[in-house]
Amino acid sequence: MSTPISSRDHAGVAPSNSGAAVRPIDWVEATDSAPGYLRLLDQTLLPGEARYRRVETVDALVDAIARLVTRGAPALGVAGGFGVVLAAQTLPAAQVAGAIARIRAARPTAVNLAWGTDRVAAALEAGGIDAALRAAKQIRDDDIRASVLMARRGADELYGELPDRSTELKLLTVCNTGALAAVERGTALGVTEEVLQDGRLAQVYACETRPLLQGARLTAWELQQMGAPYDLIIDSAAASLMRRGYVDAVLAGADRIAANGDTANKIGTFALALAARYARIPFYIVAPETTLDPRTAHGDEIEIEDRGSAEVVAIQGVPTAPVGTTALNPAFDVTPAELITAIVTDRRVIRTAAGERPDDG
Amino acid sequence: MSTPISSRDHAGVAPSNSGAAVRPIDWVEATDSAPGYLRLLDQTLLPGEARYRRVETVDALVDAIARLVTRGAPALGVAGGFGVVLAAQTLPAAQVAGAIARIRAARPTAVNLAWGTDRVAAALEAGGIDAALRAAKQIRDDDIRASVLMARRGADELYGELPDRSTELKLLTVCNTGALAAVERGTALGVTEEVLQDGRLAQVYACETRPLLQGARLTAWELQQMGAPYDLIIDSAAASLMRRGYVDAVLAGADRIAANGDTANKIGTFALALAARYARIPFYIVAPETTLDPRTAHGDEIEIEDRGSAEVVAIQGVPTAPVGTTALNPAFDVTPAELITAIVTDRRVIRTAAGERPDDG
Repeated sequence: MSTPISSRDHAGVAPSNSGAAVRPIDWVEATDSAPGYLRLLDQTLLPGEARYRRVETVDALVDAIARLVTRGAPALGVAGGFGVVLAAQTLPAAQVAGAIARIRAARPTAVNLAWGTDRVAAALEAGGIDAALRAAKQIRDDDIRASVLMARRGADELYGELPDRSTELKLLTVCNTGALAAVERGTALGVTEEVLQDGRLAQVYACETRPLLQGARLTAWELQQMGAPYDLIIDSAAASLMRRGYVDAVLAGADRIAANGDTANKIGTFALALAARYARIPFYIVAPETTLDPRTAHGDEIEIEDRGSAEVVAIQGVPTAPVGTTALNPAFDVTPAELITAIVTDRRVIRTAAGERPDDG
Repeated sequence: MSTPISSRDHAGVAPSNSGAAVRPIDWVEATDSAPGYLRLLDQTLLPGEARYRRVETVDALVDAIARLVTRGAPALGVAGGFGVVLAAQTLPAAQVAGAIARIRAARPTAVNLAWGTDRVAAALEAGGIDAALRAAKQIRDDDIRASVLMARRGADELYGELPDRSTELKLLTVCNTGALAAVERGTALGVTEEVLQDGRLAQVYACETRPLLQGARLTAWELQQMGAPYDLIIDSAAASLMRRGYVDAVLAGADRIAANGDTANKIGTFALALAARYARIPFYIVAPETTLDPRTAHGDEIEIEDRGSAEVVAIQGVPTAPVGTTALNPAFDVTPAELITAIVTDRRVIRTAAGERPDDG
């Protein structure tokens, strides 16, 4: 049973009193002497170092997105929005449209980046730079609100789906879907944090998430910050642990959800869904409504970013394979709707495995 | 259709004329001035360095097995056998039985280690050290012969199973199952090499195989040595690539095969079998008859070695997770017989998914 918190209670943009101690993406207001800029927590340096980057130009933003200084579908929506503002305030008018197109294409799979960019570009067109800045801030504030709603709805969904399990849940998660992937709280990890705050979290198994180890570097860091009990696992151990009874439910985020419910997410998510099905445990996607893409009919139409050999043949700069080895490195995969127990959004629960479609809502 | 090569043609122990340029485990004969010893290629240093270790004591051997200086089910059978010889020639009689027990238990999952140790211990008991040395050499020579037979039978099985595919095959493999895992040639990678020599290999996808990266370090190195076309992939990309049509068949080795066909192998193998089933491509286990363990009724009885946090929270010495992070690190998983198209041994093809059982043979 879902008991969503009133959105009025969470409209503010000040850092919340949740466990999220960090806002990895935000706008720093202009002063009399300096224009506003985007402030990003550099996620390539975590967990070793928490350094913020001052992003003042479109070139710097596109580089930050491509290198995953900022990442996570919700955060990319916010980045795209403020990117339009940066374009408008730093570039000659004739170059703005091209710059916006470059931001929009910096990563192809996550729909939120294109969505946020388009929404603020429309505001810029209609009302100029002040309207664009308001629209970008609105995306940021809406994302915080959506995170709160998803967290509560996801937790209630778990309690309803697993009434016969222990009152304490063992959850498995992939990549990073916490506050670092959004503005605050996040998606799947936001649900996990809610379960923790409800006093019902037994254990989290965090997949390390090769090649870039967002699970090991970022999710483990966030779990540690929030005081959650967790173990790191290699990605390929997840299936066996599910079969051996270590896991009550799998929670994943999404980069793009097609009209039929097929979901693109971090590479490896599809294998987790297969294993959950074999082990007969529920598999959830947690994502804001903004990740739904009604213009994509099904998963086969989703472009999968290939990030090249370098991320695979070396790990954090240390070579792992013989010189000359090439790698195939798809950054995402598509999980068919039939394998997804439900998609939990800030507005509803879509029971895809039972035949419900996102575009029915 | 299977056309096994006559075993007479391959009874010799000299390095064969196959692509295998290296014998990673062998016995160096005694001279007038020095006793014989075991020579191991140190696989922890590959691919950067090919250094051989001279192993003269039981303590050194147990350490080498635990640290994976030598590894791979067939090679562990050989190591266990020569280990008994080392025990007999270096230790007081009262300490030999205890030393043999330590070798036998150095890794719990691979049945070959216990099998080889027991076989040579029995020879030692019956005929003294000369008989033990003969028995150990017999295990080595039998393994070479088994590799030749498995390679041919496996290749013929693939051609028979996939008559409607291109004449060139795209194969996916996990961990290292080549010459480095055996004395020569190996198991699943031996089949791959046979397909290459038949001129029918289009591409190999080698799973990097976290945590210790045997795929990236060892299989990629062997594929490069044999001149095979290959790409490295992260383990969690395999399922999606199978679904997208990149793979015609999956070939894996085994550490222990239960009487009903349930198979313990490197962690991640079970997830590959699930993905192969979903993609409707065949999934093979390639292993010598010595890996069959009729005393284990089914997979739930197989002890799964947990190798602790250190291998997961750092990669080749570089930390990947926040200080204080723990990991669950099962080194193996069990693939249920129902998901295995067939087990290919040096003696037969056991069609487990169709209901055949190893203990029927």
